[in-house]
Amino acid sequence: MKQHEIEIRVRYAETDAMGFLHHSRYFVYFEVGRTELFRAGGGDYRKMEEDGLFLVVAKTECRFKSPIRYDDLITLRTTIERVSPAKLEHKYELFRDGELLATATSTLGCVDRSGQIQMMPDFILQSADE
Amino acid sequence: MKQHEIEIRVRYAETDAMGFLHHSRYFVYFEVGRTELFRAGGGDYRKMEEDGLFLVVAKTECRFKSPIRYDDLITLRTTIERVSPAKLEHKYELFRDGELLATATSTLGCVDRSGQIQMMPDFILQSADE
Amino acid sequence: MKQHEIEIRVRYAETDAMGFLHHSRYFVYFEVGRTELFRAGGGDYRKMEEDGLFLVVAKTECRFKSPIRYDDLITLRTTIERVSPAKLEHKYELFRDGELLATATSTLGCVDRSGQIQMMPDFILQSADE
Amino acid sequence: MKQHEIEIRVRYAETDAMGFLHHSRYFVYFEVGRTELFRAGGGDYRKMEEDGLFLVVAKTECRFKSPIRYDDLITLRTTIERVSPAKLEHKYELFRDGELLATATSTLGCVDRSGQIQMMPDFILQSADE
Repeated sequence: MKQHEIEIRVRYAETDAMGFLHHSRYFVYFEVGRTELFRAGGGDYRKMEEDGLFLVVAKTECRFKSPIRYDDLITLRTTIERVSPAKLEHKYELFRDGELLATATSTLGCVDRSGQIQMMPDFILQSADE
Repeated sequence: MKQHEIEIRVRYAETDAMGFLHHSRYFVYFEVGRTELFRAGGGDYRKMEEDGLFLVVAKTECRFKSPIRYDDLITLRTTIERVSPAKLEHKYELFRDGELLATATSTLGCVDRSGQIQMMPDFILQSADE
Repeated sequence: MKQHEIEIRVRYAETDAMGFLHHSRYFVYFEVGRTELFRAGGGDYRKMEEDGLFLVVAKTECRFKSPIRYDDLITLRTTIERVSPAKLEHKYELFRDGELLATATSTLGCVDRSGQIQMMPDFILQSADE
Repeated sequence: MKQHEIEIRVRYAETDAMGFLHHSRYFVYFEVGRTELFRAGGGDYRKMEEDGLFLVVAKTECRFKSPIRYDDLITLRTTIERVSPAKLEHKYELFRDGELLATATSTLGCVDRSGQIQMMPDFILQSADE
């Protein structure tokens, strides 16, 4: 599975004094998008960590087009853009009623419990073929 | 050391759409107060965790008297109220320019890495005598 | 409507170095529970704020019984305990597979945009009768 | 003033189950860096908002080089890279004991209370000349 959509309801605690979803919270949503894309493809990220492999964010970037408010019901589309033994790249798009609110990308690496870089597990390498 | 004061500058990301410090963030501040009280008494909570003992919150309660805004510089006074082998009780008071903004309490227990309840280490038991 | 249940999936960003849901995050969940109870009863808290009335937390208290982990799917039951023109009291219970993980209460007051105390609107006063 | 450094102590609530500062929290720190750079140059961002002008993040990007742990004392260097009537660009560098842990950039725009794009106020335009 290469693409997955979820709906997220913006919580009050995620807004700021400007009345909008704080920009740092977008990255929390993107992480939820990755987890659910992984789950939808039959993966279990919690189990992967219990087995000693961790995905860590090496780089991320976001463009904020239109503000998001408390209680908005938004759609997050998460897409695997590229995967190699060294890294996993995602793209994110946030929509409200069809309007594109933000786009983002991230690059993840894989490490073991001690922080040593590891190859992406086969399960993830194959996810780009489906 | 039984009591310690620190100053905290309220961050934009900690406010909510009402323009005030979100009530859940007070508990983050209280935790910082505990860490700094511990450090001021010669303790090192990070080292305590590395050695396999963890303080966990069993109960907490807060009364919010006056709202706190972005960029407010507030004073947090943290006091050890009681300590026994089974639990550690703190009191918290938040002030701005001498005005009391909130009061709170918490009760912590001590557990090991597997979550089993442990006796409070001597260092903590003695902190109430100083 | 006096009681409502929702399911919440614990996000990675909500855990802490101990591996558990951070205790401050429970209060974020309780707020979501209040919003959804309000919505289920036909209310719209965002609209209430746009109309100039705000519910503010005057007091809250939580007992943590069992830790909650990343990716746990938990059930939050939110109940209106009491409502009067001056205050609105809720009770919260968190479950995972039927096990009670935490209980909490909160007391809310109602204020206008300038922070002046207001009577609870009729809609909220009537919610306790249903 | 074009560059400013502050020290930040990593809070327990900012870490995640991996034991590291969660990547979304870096953006909270960068915002604190902007506020303090602004203050060090004689500005007052809270007052600017009270006067009806808001700085909003249009784009941000971060590269994470080395993980950051609970209780680490880190240095954040915030630099104004470019400023024009349309946008304000910052660069961020995070250090621990001289080691570079992360680099980031952001682009801010200026809006009024209704979200309409405004020219950067003179105070900010002049900050790049100092």
